[in-house]
Amino acid sequence: MLLCDIGNTSVHFFDGSRDYKESVTSFGPSVITEKIYYICVNSNLKSRVKFLENWIDLSLYIDTLKYYKGMGIDRVAACEAIQNGIVVDAGSAITVDLVKDGIFQGGFIYPGVKAMGEAYKNISSALECSFNFELDLDKMPKNSQDAISYGFIKTLFVEVMSHNMEIYLTGGYAKEFSKIFKSASVDELLIFKGMKNIMKKANLC
Amino acid sequence: MLLCDIGNTSVHFFDGSRDYKESVTSFGPSVITEKIYYICVNSNLKSRVKFLENWIDLSLYIDTLKYYKGMGIDRVAACEAIQNGIVVDAGSAITVDLVKDGIFQGGFIYPGVKAMGEAYKNISSALECSFNFELDLDKMPKNSQDAISYGFIKTLFVEVMSHNMEIYLTGGYAKEFSKIFKSASVDELLIFKGMKNIMKKANLC
Repeated sequence: MLLCDIGNTSVHFFDGSRDYKESVTSFGPSVITEKIYYICVNSNLKSRVKFLENWIDLSLYIDTLKYYKGMGIDRVAACEAIQNGIVVDAGSAITVDLVKDGIFQGGFIYPGVKAMGEAYKNISSALECSFNFELDLDKMPKNSQDAISYGFIKTLFVEVMSHNMEIYLTGGYAKEFSKIFKSASVDELLIFKGMKNIMKKANLC
Repeated sequence: MLLCDIGNTSVHFFDGSRDYKESVTSFGPSVITEKIYYICVNSNLKSRVKFLENWIDLSLYIDTLKYYKGMGIDRVAACEAIQNGIVVDAGSAITVDLVKDGIFQGGFIYPGVKAMGEAYKNISSALECSFNFELDLDKMPKNSQDAISYGFIKTLFVEVMSHNMEIYLTGGYAKEFSKIFKSASVDELLIFKGMKNIMKKANLC
């Protein structure tokens, strides 16, 4: 059984033991002939996979009343993976979602590393630099790189920490953010766990 | 006596009683023939004004040891305006700087409204929307616009508030952010106050 999480940047697969990624730009869904359960936030790829019979769209098996209209299915899947906690999914966007006793409590969306880097650069070339994930979050910065890194990272950190819940960290930038969210459980397969839980509830496995 | 704060988007003047703005794209510095004291973070315009004799660059009169190398002169000027507090200058970028007993304690840079809107839009067209400055910051959002607005605004808010200092709000987006920082002192002329203080210390007025 193959699971697939189609994002805005990459297509992430899990075959039950191994996970691997492909770029959305090079990915061709029709090469996969076995049954594959997927979620997709990428409208271009969605239009290509939805007519393929072996591609099963798990968004059709969600209890939609638990979530809100327009909420990304990747966020829903991540929430379905946990009973209590706050999910930080650091991908193209960073989504932060709160779950209490298996019930979604709300969440927010923050730009990811690449989008935020571009945002600074587009204001002024003087603000173009890489983020420092090793910066001291307890000190107001006194150099340019840290002033930008702190703006991006500390603001997110202090908001996430204010909820005082167990943090589940996933997504392509999970490793970088684990330097910041030191107490977080890092699980790059969290969305697949959620997808499996959706399938169990729907008797698909 | 004319003061001028040249930013990345607009050129802001103050003649002692009235302030007015021009776009950086249409602004021609040589039409001003009277003496004008300026600060400038815009490298293109800086190269045009620095050879004009009547344009006096206030960055040359700063006590540089109090600040860090590469720190925007607009941030320095804002810090020179206050003795104790946290300055939130909401312009193309949002700069946040802490001052205690007249001494700069550090600060950070966050993308402004326009740059952040572009950042969300560039991740996915599904994330393109205007920010809601009326949102309830005490509730994790359950709709798309608030999920994005909260990501942008609440993260900044909670970090700024954590310093427990008087907030001075300035910049082109000060009015929007005064809906969020309800206790802040809004002063759109704060940078000019700082510029005057720099001039007093340097015996320029």
